[in-house]
Amino acid sequence: MINRLVENIRKTGAPIVVGLDPMLGYVPEQVKKKAFEEYGETLEGAAEAIWQFNREIVDKTWDLIPAVKPQIAMYEQFGIPGLQAFQKTVDYCKEKGLVVIGDIKRGDIGSTSAAYAVGHLGKVQVGSKTYAPFDEDFATVNPYLGSDGVKPFIEVCKEEKKGLFILVKTSNPSSGEFQDRLIDGRPLYELVGEKVAQWGEDHMGEEYSYIGAVVGATYPEMGKVLRKIMPKAYILVPGYGAQGGKGKDLVHFFNEDGLGAIVNSSRGIIAAYKQEAYASYGEEHFGEAARAAVEAMKLDISQALEAGL
Amino acid sequence: MINRLVENIRKTGAPIVVGLDPMLGYVPEQVKKKAFEEYGETLEGAAEAIWQFNREIVDKTWDLIPAVKPQIAMYEQFGIPGLQAFQKTVDYCKEKGLVVIGDIKRGDIGSTSAAYAVGHLGKVQVGSKTYAPFDEDFATVNPYLGSDGVKPFIEVCKEEKKGLFILVKTSNPSSGEFQDRLIDGRPLYELVGEKVAQWGEDHMGEEYSYIGAVVGATYPEMGKVLRKIMPKAYILVPGYGAQGGKGKDLVHFFNEDGLGAIVNSSRGIIAAYKQEAYASYGEEHFGEAARAAVEAMKLDISQALEAGL
Repeated sequence: MINRLVENIRKTGAPIVVGLDPMLGYVPEQVKKKAFEEYGETLEGAAEAIWQFNREIVDKTWDLIPAVKPQIAMYEQFGIPGLQAFQKTVDYCKEKGLVVIGDIKRGDIGSTSAAYAVGHLGKVQVGSKTYAPFDEDFATVNPYLGSDGVKPFIEVCKEEKKGLFILVKTSNPSSGEFQDRLIDGRPLYELVGEKVAQWGEDHMGEEYSYIGAVVGATYPEMGKVLRKIMPKAYILVPGYGAQGGKGKDLVHFFNEDGLGAIVNSSRGIIAAYKQEAYASYGEEHFGEAARAAVEAMKLDISQALEAGL
Repeated sequence: MINRLVENIRKTGAPIVVGLDPMLGYVPEQVKKKAFEEYGETLEGAAEAIWQFNREIVDKTWDLIPAVKPQIAMYEQFGIPGLQAFQKTVDYCKEKGLVVIGDIKRGDIGSTSAAYAVGHLGKVQVGSKTYAPFDEDFATVNPYLGSDGVKPFIEVCKEEKKGLFILVKTSNPSSGEFQDRLIDGRPLYELVGEKVAQWGEDHMGEEYSYIGAVVGATYPEMGKVLRKIMPKAYILVPGYGAQGGKGKDLVHFFNEDGLGAIVNSSRGIIAAYKQEAYASYGEEHFGEAARAAVEAMKLDISQALEAGL
């Protein structure tokens, strides 16, 4: 799957992933109105609204981008109907040829991580049959429990040719509280990064490893160090746009081949129509606004890479 | 909710939580057969089997125990039908007066943690209406992202009078890989424990805080230290029984009031009928075997506490 991700990135020339994190507040009134008319102001109505919203975003951007990253929390908050919208979104994006990164940040003791792994990336056995319940292509994983919490995910990836992005240095303001603490003179995130590199060495695709890392755009200096520690790990970079990261901050997340990183933007793209720069599209054309925001982001990153690499 | 947990523990005299982590392999043949006859060997069939299994375990143990801890991964692995079984289990246990600890180990950047928090502990807004999607009483939370990943959960707990157990030192063999690393001469789990104590101080119930901690029974010496660092935090102790923890290992997780800790057993109770000690119950009477295992666990812990406190 890492090979397909790289191939999609090469094909589109856009190391960009669109975060499908549909807060109801991002969904235009006309979309909500229609969903609520059909299902009422219910969890089903909310789920229908975010699904229709997602579909329009995907329809207007899929040919420009290699991948999407639905954040499962934004669906889980609407209970079962929300999770059904998550599943529909994953399926629809895969039909469009997009690589789907399930931003699930799961991680537990071994036997429990194994259950998450089959549920999201693999197949679960029921009697003599098997099913692939959520079937994302990649999943994000929290490393706090150590190797035995991560390895069941790796095992499933090996079987299914899927991939992981392990949280190394997250984009949020207080990520340093534990992640930056020094251990033998080096921050915890570097030790996690070393582990990611180790796990990844045994699970190589053609050029990059199946085992990638999450490193926030908001910490470019740390990204530079981590790039060197994990040369073969694809880095998923959240925090661009709404969280404050800019194109020039991203340069050192990439390798000299122009690959090695994929930058996420969620609100900045899916709710672009709410920004002044794209206001002229109007609420009805939120999909076109998202497309324009993808094009602007692609330009911003490619200019930064040309200037910086 | 922490007050009700303490009250339930006092009433039952059992600082015990039953982990409702139903692997299909634990479900007796006759229960699976019936479910598969009705729904086929499908995700729905698996979900029905684990729900019927849970119901029988709860029916046979609810009067002995204060709380249950369903591990959501065991349901999520069966996709949407599995999560419906999770929801039914949560609702059923609450009807029985049990405190429900959702073992979800979620944790993300602020806005995303907020979505998990409303989905699992709070209420989500849909137009003019609100809904409580999963509505557990407590949730487990992963601290790797730092304060701003935890605080949205705390906010919801304050509003809804619910509670958290933050992962501090987990029960699995490789938990030390990151959690035990020394920072200024002290292990990371102690720093996390200090944060839990700080967060908890501002969110006190009558005797204990709404903000508790997870510390594995498999690390009794660390439990002793953490007990002192977090005197007002309830400690959820996994790892008893199948993972190797014994009654005598648990003594120092408790305070002198005999409170302050609640010990989880999953496989050791719900799959008791598979152990030699309870084999005489037979597969059909797996619920009675679970009841006997709860009684034995209660005795083991109370003897250890009498001897050790």
